[in-house]
Amino acid sequence: MLTVHHLGKSQSERIVWLCEELGLSYEFKRYDRDPNTTLAPPEYKALHPLGAAPVISDGDLVLAESGAIVDYIIAKHGGGRLALAPAHPDYAQYVYWFHFANSTLQPVMGRSLVLSRAKLPADNPVVLWTKARQDLALNFLDARLRDADYLAGRELTAADIMIVFSLTTMRYFLPTDLTPYPHILKYLRRIGERETYRKAMRKGDPEMAPLLT
Amino acid sequence: MLTVHHLGKSQSERIVWLCEELGLSYEFKRYDRDPNTTLAPPEYKALHPLGAAPVISDGDLVLAESGAIVDYIIAKHGGGRLALAPAHPDYAQYVYWFHFANSTLQPVMGRSLVLSRAKLPADNPVVLWTKARQDLALNFLDARLRDADYLAGRELTAADIMIVFSLTTMRYFLPTDLTPYPHILKYLRRIGERETYRKAMRKGDPEMAPLLT
Repeated sequence: MLTVHHLGKSQSERIVWLCEELGLSYEFKRYDRDPNTTLAPPEYKALHPLGAAPVISDGDLVLAESGAIVDYIIAKHGGGRLALAPAHPDYAQYVYWFHFANSTLQPVMGRSLVLSRAKLPADNPVVLWTKARQDLALNFLDARLRDADYLAGRELTAADIMIVFSLTTMRYFLPTDLTPYPHILKYLRRIGERETYRKAMRKGDPEMAPLLT
Repeated sequence: MLTVHHLGKSQSERIVWLCEELGLSYEFKRYDRDPNTTLAPPEYKALHPLGAAPVISDGDLVLAESGAIVDYIIAKHGGGRLALAPAHPDYAQYVYWFHFANSTLQPVMGRSLVLSRAKLPADNPVVLWTKARQDLALNFLDARLRDADYLAGRELTAADIMIVFSLTTMRYFLPTDLTPYPHILKYLRRIGERETYRKAMRKGDPEMAPLLT
């Protein structure tokens, strides 16, 4: 039995959404962050050596890491749906945006977050440089979403499921003004109209209105 | 014709190594960093909107992002070699470590790097927290390499090709003491004995002795 261990307000919302989008039957377990430290509770940290969300279990397997879990669930439980095969004309776009989500966009937001938590002044050269890299990534994403409704092209794929967290819930931790990116905002409204996404957010983070605008 | 645009001392060494490991015929173009700023030269930045390494071109396609390029080359030019298929017993390990490389390990090293460039004191709580996360990731990797010769198991896969940069050339930018991780060091010596890796490093970064210990 596939179990999704969901830490509230975390990257594991991707996995809940993926399961809803694929219409899978799965066990859902929710864990709350410590209200004072915002850290994962001890029982979540005990699931996997790195103690970070997301984590799933499937029989004897315990698996972490968003990209790995998405690949695994699609291949093992989803019949390959929401991924594009190498012969698909949009394959290169699919693999590009899938990896961009958690190896370029989320990391630059992570660097912004640690710099903001270190309380460096906004005119520190490293802060300015990091902000410029983040703006460049968001601009490039906005240009893609000017040309296509979804990251890989015409249809929603796992690349979209990978990226939305960084554009929504991540802003709970790192306030990010998306008004310079009208196509990203339009895309988020499109995502927010999907019943599968709404169901996943109701299930995983009912107390938090999704940051869709 | 597949062209690898290699920026010296960068993540694109992965792609050169991948092509050598697969025995592909490809065009190799090398670009040098500006010796004063260490930044990519204008002609490299012009290849792709984000201006970061790696970048390949293949006919009309220009593709960036390590994970995307590795997936693309293996699927389109490598006949699926160096990837594990979903039916393989080590598939979950394969996808885990493939994504861990550039979505967990390299990002935490990137956070360490920006904090070190911001010249924060070593006892700053954010610096200490980031160092602890990096140590946790390296410890977990060391434990895996105590139990397996390669990340996915018995054979070298693309997961190994993804991770080695962070353990070697990345230390040119972010000095990282690996002596607490004997299994990582043993693994790097094993990698350093591969003629394909040595050939890629001679081709891409001949002036730099690989940081293999």
